[in-house]
Amino acid sequence: MAEALRVGIAGLGTVGASVARVLAEKAAELTRQCGRDIIVSAVSARDASRDRGVDLSGAKWFDDPVDLACNADIDVFVELIGGEEGAARASVTAALEAGRHVVTANKALLSRHGVELAGIAEERGILLNYEAAVAGGIPVIKTMREAMAGNTVSRVFGILNGTCNYILTRMEAEGLSFEDCLKDAQRLGYAEADPTFDIEGNDTAHKLSILTSLAFGSRIAPDDIYLEGISNITQADIRAASELGYRIKLLGVAQRTETGIEQRVHPTMVPTASVIAQVHGVTNAVAIETDILGELLLSGPGAGGNATASAVIGDIADIAKSRPGFQHGPVFGRPAKELHPYVRARMRTHEGGYFIRLTVHDRAGVFAAVATRMAENEISLESIVQHANGANPETQKTVILVTHETTEAAVRRAVEGIVADGHLVDKPQVIRIERAG
Amino acid sequence: MAEALRVGIAGLGTVGASVARVLAEKAAELTRQCGRDIIVSAVSARDASRDRGVDLSGAKWFDDPVDLACNADIDVFVELIGGEEGAARASVTAALEAGRHVVTANKALLSRHGVELAGIAEERGILLNYEAAVAGGIPVIKTMREAMAGNTVSRVFGILNGTCNYILTRMEAEGLSFEDCLKDAQRLGYAEADPTFDIEGNDTAHKLSILTSLAFGSRIAPDDIYLEGISNITQADIRAASELGYRIKLLGVAQRTETGIEQRVHPTMVPTASVIAQVHGVTNAVAIETDILGELLLSGPGAGGNATASAVIGDIADIAKSRPGFQHGPVFGRPAKELHPYVRARMRTHEGGYFIRLTVHDRAGVFAAVATRMAENEISLESIVQHANGANPETQKTVILVTHETTEAAVRRAVEGIVADGHLVDKPQVIRIERAG
Repeated sequence: MAEALRVGIAGLGTVGASVARVLAEKAAELTRQCGRDIIVSAVSARDASRDRGVDLSGAKWFDDPVDLACNADIDVFVELIGGEEGAARASVTAALEAGRHVVTANKALLSRHGVELAGIAEERGILLNYEAAVAGGIPVIKTMREAMAGNTVSRVFGILNGTCNYILTRMEAEGLSFEDCLKDAQRLGYAEADPTFDIEGNDTAHKLSILTSLAFGSRIAPDDIYLEGISNITQADIRAASELGYRIKLLGVAQRTETGIEQRVHPTMVPTASVIAQVHGVTNAVAIETDILGELLLSGPGAGGNATASAVIGDIADIAKSRPGFQHGPVFGRPAKELHPYVRARMRTHEGGYFIRLTVHDRAGVFAAVATRMAENEISLESIVQHANGANPETQKTVILVTHETTEAAVRRAVEGIVADGHLVDKPQVIRIERAG
Repeated sequence: MAEALRVGIAGLGTVGASVARVLAEKAAELTRQCGRDIIVSAVSARDASRDRGVDLSGAKWFDDPVDLACNADIDVFVELIGGEEGAARASVTAALEAGRHVVTANKALLSRHGVELAGIAEERGILLNYEAAVAGGIPVIKTMREAMAGNTVSRVFGILNGTCNYILTRMEAEGLSFEDCLKDAQRLGYAEADPTFDIEGNDTAHKLSILTSLAFGSRIAPDDIYLEGISNITQADIRAASELGYRIKLLGVAQRTETGIEQRVHPTMVPTASVIAQVHGVTNAVAIETDILGELLLSGPGAGGNATASAVIGDIADIAKSRPGFQHGPVFGRPAKELHPYVRARMRTHEGGYFIRLTVHDRAGVFAAVATRMAENEISLESIVQHANGANPETQKTVILVTHETTEAAVRRAVEGIVADGHLVDKPQVIRIERAG
């Protein structure tokens, strides 16, 4: 049998401890699958004394992950520290430069420095694996990087944040407010004390930026993403969506258009009968559309110590099955130096259907004024419904419009016009509709 | 750049022609992804003169695929002939023995001879890739063989036959009979002139037997599968399922139980709100449940020239990225000689919920007699409903029972008892209910 693969783990939180435990518990099976033993020979974390439910006495302890990355007797450096700078970036860079394979679950690091790190890995002929960085246990990186070779992707979209999907699922199922669901999510550990990063879409954007690069062969562009969170989604939206045959999900979408690549994260209406609409709670899902394969959808646990550990171990096993001298496929599907610059399609050129919910003063001519603004901007309507179900049904009405395919620019102009007309009681709500199979 | 990877394709039907065309059209992109050119250097098919919409003039023609496998200047032999014996088996065996990597889409061949062929490949240190053999374009082999390393699978199940799913989808959507939907499927090319192999579940069984081996590390056992097709599913079943919150799908299910491994293919009721219930038409889906990752679901096109070609090309690209001397992971996840014998769990020990539809004579005591037979066999009922919607509502009634979790043996005894009681007008219908998320 080949020599054992020596693994160094930096970061022993939930995921790190889970990786170490599974590697120990499944050692015999992993050896059978990989043709060699996988052993944890070095670890690093903040607190050496903490009990993590796994025996790490056989591993050498390092206080400093960079020291581990450079000086430990390891073949693979597993980075589970987190953060786009600091110890994570320094140790991953050091490991790659020392010629060690790297496995990381760090979406922030890759989103910011992935192309640079990929360049180092490819120059050294070593692997940089990161299945756990996007959609937890779902093997979307392997699918896009390996299984879809030769496919030209037209669109990739997904539910990439379990916190948001948990909140939206409970809002719909139980009729609760966003605030109440968020509080419950925090109590259950599905949301952070400061939930901004999740609920405003930043976490989804990090993950999306990596998928975009894999899909389109472009350099990662985490700052060129249109971003809208879920904090202004109300029961009125959820109910109206349901009546119209839609469900609201926070999607990350990357799409090739005539003017460039659209990257957007926003609440989205998807048809209730679509597969992705059935993805509930903290589950994640990714759909990929290509010219040859067609449409593929993967759904599964997007977070959690074990699911994330499973992806990390899959990455380690792939390295264990490889041997020195093996020339690997490029980190982001195409060689880092051949990734082309990201060309951003402006959001104003986005084409699609729109849901528009307006709370208007109940007076003559309002309905006509709204319809006129739509017509002026050449927006044709699939449906227009007037409800008397507002807070003050005697003086206010709710108008719900669903448009046929139009452009973001037209919708913005129309809504600005409606606001200027002075008929609105409240801020208008605009939610994009996404095709989904 | 490394030397070009030379591919020989045996079989130039829809899939073979599509593989050759995509390799030509996406040559530059594939070279970027794989770090070397991929060229079709040899082909074999029955008719050399046929126009296949792709220029094969650069490839050497072989009349005999075995001759191609042994004597062509190739690195990879792509078998797209089909069939479990004959030219397919002979040429794949010859290619492996000549030390050539093999890519095949042939589920029948693998189902019957996969372990033997894997043994040859592993001895020679070469690859036998077969992503296209199960669920067409869905990367389920790569997911189970690579991404799920270290996971212990408890159950794998899926919609593995597009013909059956197309028929069941149309029956539900349009209220048509099985026979009418089958005729349409034949007209549209979704079903063969002799549809037995698809509609009686044999095709699903072939694919399931391969997934079972990957899931449980057991030798492939295509003959130890409980088999029931969809030809006796009626509108009465579809409607009753819908009223109860279920949808009927032909599933292949492999499951670890206390007494062994269950492999079964049968019409199944899955909750309408589950993800797999939204998989419509010719689309396939596979769900995998494991101890570490949790539950993963993949859905996508299960057949068609392009989708199948995409899987074949992914397999070829994986070989192109590897280099001589590379030691690959085993063909079925564990080395062929370490796959343990398949231990069959008898169908009688299967545990689950059951749907039972009875057409009974409308006379006093029938309802009580049915309930008594259930009670005798310790089957507790979730619901029991009597309908007057039979063909002869004045003399007949329909009784629909849904059981709580029970055993196949108990249900069979109860139904035999009901039949013996002489109250039935028609054959009883029994459909198993499957948990699905």
